[in-house]
Amino acid sequence: MTDSAKFTTLSGLGALHHVGLAASDRSAMVSLYRDLLGYALSHVEDLPSQGLEALVFAKGSELIEVLIPRSADSAVGRFLTKRGPGMHHLCYAVANLETTIAELVASGVQLTDTQPVRGLFGPVVFIHPKAAHGVMLELLQPE
Amino acid sequence: MTDSAKFTTLSGLGALHHVGLAASDRSAMVSLYRDLLGYALSHVEDLPSQGLEALVFAKGSELIEVLIPRSADSAVGRFLTKRGPGMHHLCYAVANLETTIAELVASGVQLTDTQPVRGLFGPVVFIHPKAAHGVMLELLQPE
Repeated sequence: MTDSAKFTTLSGLGALHHVGLAASDRSAMVSLYRDLLGYALSHVEDLPSQGLEALVFAKGSELIEVLIPRSADSAVGRFLTKRGPGMHHLCYAVANLETTIAELVASGVQLTDTQPVRGLFGPVVFIHPKAAHGVMLELLQPE
Repeated sequence: MTDSAKFTTLSGLGALHHVGLAASDRSAMVSLYRDLLGYALSHVEDLPSQGLEALVFAKGSELIEVLIPRSADSAVGRFLTKRGPGMHHLCYAVANLETTIAELVASGVQLTDTQPVRGLFGPVVFIHPKAAHGVMLELLQPE
């Protein structure tokens, strides 16, 4: 990305929906986010198509999504192998994901996939970290 | 951290205060967070003692703190050399930082330094990423 990059703000952009973390040690995450930081463990779900288990920690409107890979060759498994556990993505809600995808493509922003995939809270796309200075940005149309 | 780790929730713990990012390309961050994601660039400050420039992007109560090192041998400079730009820390507000430090030390949680350092929003301490499964957790007494 160069100085000449110019964007207009995405239509229908909502608030920060959640912070996503990648982890391998489930009990450590429960100890930290439930016990130490006072979140409720509000949801646990297997996402076999993505080779992971997801935990959701909630406190008021704050959500922390923890992705625990079931296999090393899943996307999150490869992330863990390369970088170790830690912060994984920031997720923003949008009103209409098709509109968002069209705007991002028109602006030349690289997505990991231009077709929505199934996220924990609804369909999502990801801006590639290379297009967002190292941060994986997830855009979600909440259901 | 093992299964036997047991914590009680920190006293006076507040909301997620901000998400911290480490970056090298200032203009890319402004394009992304101001132009694309609709934050205001609300504050810019040099923190010479930490060898960095900090940018604050604000939208409603959401804050994104961007740390841009001035030198490669600062803490954030070393982070960039090792991991590249990206997500750096999660910051939680606390009512009394001395109480928080005492509780963390009593629970055996490793801090990067048991003495508060000067953050952008007030005094802070950091839980070492090794003690938080790869996430740098900042605790802040906002001023």
